[in-house]
Amino acid sequence: MPDSRFFSRRGPFALSELAVLAEAELDAAANAARVIRDVAPLGSAGPDDIAFLDNTKYVSEFLESAAGACIASPAYCDRAPAGMNLVLSATPYRAYGLIAAAFYPPERAPEGRAPAAQIDPSAVLGDDVAIGPGAVVGAAASIGARSVVGPNVVVGPGVVIGDDCRIIGSATLSYCLIGDRVTIHPGVRIGQDGFGFAADSAGFLSIPQLGRVIINDDVDIGANTVIDRGTSSDTVIGAGTRIDNLVHIAHNVAVGRGCALAGQVGVAGSTTIGDQVMIGGQAGINGHLMIGDGARIAAKSGVISDVPAGTSEGGYPSRPVRDWHRQTIRLDQLARTRGAKDD
Amino acid sequence: MPDSRFFSRRGPFALSELAVLAEAELDAAANAARVIRDVAPLGSAGPDDIAFLDNTKYVSEFLESAAGACIASPAYCDRAPAGMNLVLSATPYRAYGLIAAAFYPPERAPEGRAPAAQIDPSAVLGDDVAIGPGAVVGAAASIGARSVVGPNVVVGPGVVIGDDCRIIGSATLSYCLIGDRVTIHPGVRIGQDGFGFAADSAGFLSIPQLGRVIINDDVDIGANTVIDRGTSSDTVIGAGTRIDNLVHIAHNVAVGRGCALAGQVGVAGSTTIGDQVMIGGQAGINGHLMIGDGARIAAKSGVISDVPAGTSEGGYPSRPVRDWHRQTIRLDQLARTRGAKDD
Amino acid sequence: MPDSRFFSRRGPFALSELAVLAEAELDAAANAARVIRDVAPLGSAGPDDIAFLDNTKYVSEFLESAAGACIASPAYCDRAPAGMNLVLSATPYRAYGLIAAAFYPPERAPEGRAPAAQIDPSAVLGDDVAIGPGAVVGAAASIGARSVVGPNVVVGPGVVIGDDCRIIGSATLSYCLIGDRVTIHPGVRIGQDGFGFAADSAGFLSIPQLGRVIINDDVDIGANTVIDRGTSSDTVIGAGTRIDNLVHIAHNVAVGRGCALAGQVGVAGSTTIGDQVMIGGQAGINGHLMIGDGARIAAKSGVISDVPAGTSEGGYPSRPVRDWHRQTIRLDQLARTRGAKDD
Repeated sequence: MPDSRFFSRRGPFALSELAVLAEAELDAAANAARVIRDVAPLGSAGPDDIAFLDNTKYVSEFLESAAGACIASPAYCDRAPAGMNLVLSATPYRAYGLIAAAFYPPERAPEGRAPAAQIDPSAVLGDDVAIGPGAVVGAAASIGARSVVGPNVVVGPGVVIGDDCRIIGSATLSYCLIGDRVTIHPGVRIGQDGFGFAADSAGFLSIPQLGRVIINDDVDIGANTVIDRGTSSDTVIGAGTRIDNLVHIAHNVAVGRGCALAGQVGVAGSTTIGDQVMIGGQAGINGHLMIGDGARIAAKSGVISDVPAGTSEGGYPSRPVRDWHRQTIRLDQLARTRGAKDD
Repeated sequence: MPDSRFFSRRGPFALSELAVLAEAELDAAANAARVIRDVAPLGSAGPDDIAFLDNTKYVSEFLESAAGACIASPAYCDRAPAGMNLVLSATPYRAYGLIAAAFYPPERAPEGRAPAAQIDPSAVLGDDVAIGPGAVVGAAASIGARSVVGPNVVVGPGVVIGDDCRIIGSATLSYCLIGDRVTIHPGVRIGQDGFGFAADSAGFLSIPQLGRVIINDDVDIGANTVIDRGTSSDTVIGAGTRIDNLVHIAHNVAVGRGCALAGQVGVAGSTTIGDQVMIGGQAGINGHLMIGDGARIAAKSGVISDVPAGTSEGGYPSRPVRDWHRQTIRLDQLARTRGAKDD
Repeated sequence: MPDSRFFSRRGPFALSELAVLAEAELDAAANAARVIRDVAPLGSAGPDDIAFLDNTKYVSEFLESAAGACIASPAYCDRAPAGMNLVLSATPYRAYGLIAAAFYPPERAPEGRAPAAQIDPSAVLGDDVAIGPGAVVGAAASIGARSVVGPNVVVGPGVVIGDDCRIIGSATLSYCLIGDRVTIHPGVRIGQDGFGFAADSAGFLSIPQLGRVIINDDVDIGANTVIDRGTSSDTVIGAGTRIDNLVHIAHNVAVGRGCALAGQVGVAGSTTIGDQVMIGGQAGINGHLMIGDGARIAAKSGVISDVPAGTSEGGYPSRPVRDWHRQTIRLDQLARTRGAKDD
């Protein structure tokens, strides 16, 4: 059961209600009136809990689970252990998320405007904006309705934040325009100067960075991630894109809609990433490249050339995943077969 | 000599006292009453200083050092230059650490509770807790005796911090339980939402993250490292584990006791790492894996399969270190021997 | 045109004035009296704007640009489209930087000393120092003339900051001496304990870290980068060096003058890096190495041996770039030619 020091539970709900919330179907054998009081993982769920099965690694836990209900693919409708009521969904994890959000709706914190916040008199705050202690809101900044600015966040002069955003804590926003329903996790840095300089024999000369960062609606940015502003055009993150922790997005990068960038990814300057692109952890993308829509880049890859839409690449320098895997196999064979002679 | 603007020296100590503190033996030829006033590196130490030799790279500096005393392995007891008194230890660096801590005990800063700190009235603070300016302590948070919460740290609602902890500055703690004697360096982010979402054709749906982060006793977490809370179970860091800077620990990860994770390591979600595991810098561990007790992962490795206890792996995909090295050698041979023909 | 919410434009300037500022020459066909009102990229510039051409990727944009003026290499002096006046420079990007700084000089923010800043009475502040809200300046710290300490920055006890520095926001400085004209971006952590411990069977013993961090003049440090202080000697960053975002510099590292370290680079403890060394993104340098002056390390490389001055390396383990590229080619050939038989 989630720790009540941190999470406030709603409910209970009848199983039939949960199926509706989850946009799912009750199994024919399920008891629609069954009362469910909480969500729980398969391994610890009891008769009052609903769990989910979304990864075949956990089928054995499913088969032994004491959960009163479980969300699963219709393929499992004959395999539920005794006492388990099934909620059937082609997307069990998504269905679980909808149900879990009914039990544990997102909380707003802080409430109101902390006396210790420093809000410039020229800043414009929408209805029901909450500002935490130690937050600093600069001149002419604008924060939309119901947005929450957490403790010790710095919102620079002129920054625009849309409605229903969560800027959770200790983040720094400058030279940026942020859409609606954006979540920014602690320690995120948006809008500072990028790595922009001209080199000559006398050293480096900083180039004024005159662009902005545009964060579109429904973006989620992980803790301690850094997004630099553009040099003359803007750095842009497309709607619905998810960025994990400790990611580096350099100046002038454009990331499309619905992308997912995993932890510690780095994208060098002026690269354009299409829509629905998936990039695995610790991958690096060189500058001035085009990554096509729907491309998938494996974790730890190093991309130094354009990637066509819809393709998957891995390795360094990255290449189609099939070629990368073949290289791995060949190298392994080479190491083994010639080992006796040369070692 | 350490800069007195930053470090306050205690002492002096007789060499015999230092040997006791260091759990070491005086060399038979050493002058037990010799007064030592400071620690210093071999290269700059003078007659009043004690140095140490722990790496054979520095033997030549040892042989020419003017240090009045030196901690070294018994193997060097005949090799000290004239005027150097030896303190013999099988673990010279550890012995040095104990002596250095006698001269320079850890300082507490800040002292007291800064007027500019924002402490919720429902928070429970133990004896002699220090809270720095700009720190924010949320509702029902609990901070144990003698713990220090540095400037601009944010301690979220309900967070529990044990005794004798140092939360040094500008860190953000939420949804977490922290043991005793834990050190958290600046900019650490603990407990925020992980990269948890369900994907479908309409985009990404955030899944409520209902677990916590559990940091056990004597853990040390480096600057700007990020540890996400669990999805339904907890993210756990075992007692005595050391985590370096800019490390990414995703949701539901369990790290065992006495591990060392070097800078910029990334561990993806739901992976379990055993006890006494060593992971080199910039290595990445895929999600849902088991890394056995005592395993060693080389720097920059990419681990995509379980690693058996007690083994060492390197490369990407990682494999036993011997195989990885053989691959490196073979590839090098291949590049050289066929170079003339194909270039 | 740069967003006036964030940028205040000066000017206009005659083309002849701009050529002087840019240390460049007017093309013989250019109209020296032409009035220029702004900088803009080639693609969006109009008749009142000056653009630049520095990368052959953008020649086609140059040939179709409506810019009233453009900075370019003398090689393009016959190729300007009708209506474009050329400013000729062997270093067009540098010349652009000088002109852009005339239109958009760096702004100082915040001004004055915010009432919400916590400045220890024993701190020494030079003329015209600005301290933002929520900033904390410790005992006996010293901040030089005209330096700006941004919101929520923590300057630890005894820290020395030179003249004309910009500590932009939410950074944490401790145990360090900072030169003149240094820029520190948000979330930078300087001077905390490094990953310094002795291991034995009982676990890890922290070693007192008694050195400092020395940041020399004209250094620029990117957002969320971490630089640990030395163990007994100092961690040093040489004059004019540029460090990008999310870089990890471990204790006792010495980085020379005029280096550029790209995003997410990691340098392990006690390594010495010479002058004018360039290190690509996500590269890792092992500890206790010497990287010679002028060396170049490719992105994502893993360096485990000393690198001679003036050489270029890549790969992991890194080797001369030519050998690394040959390995890549050979491995690719191997995968292709033997694919049919073994798959």
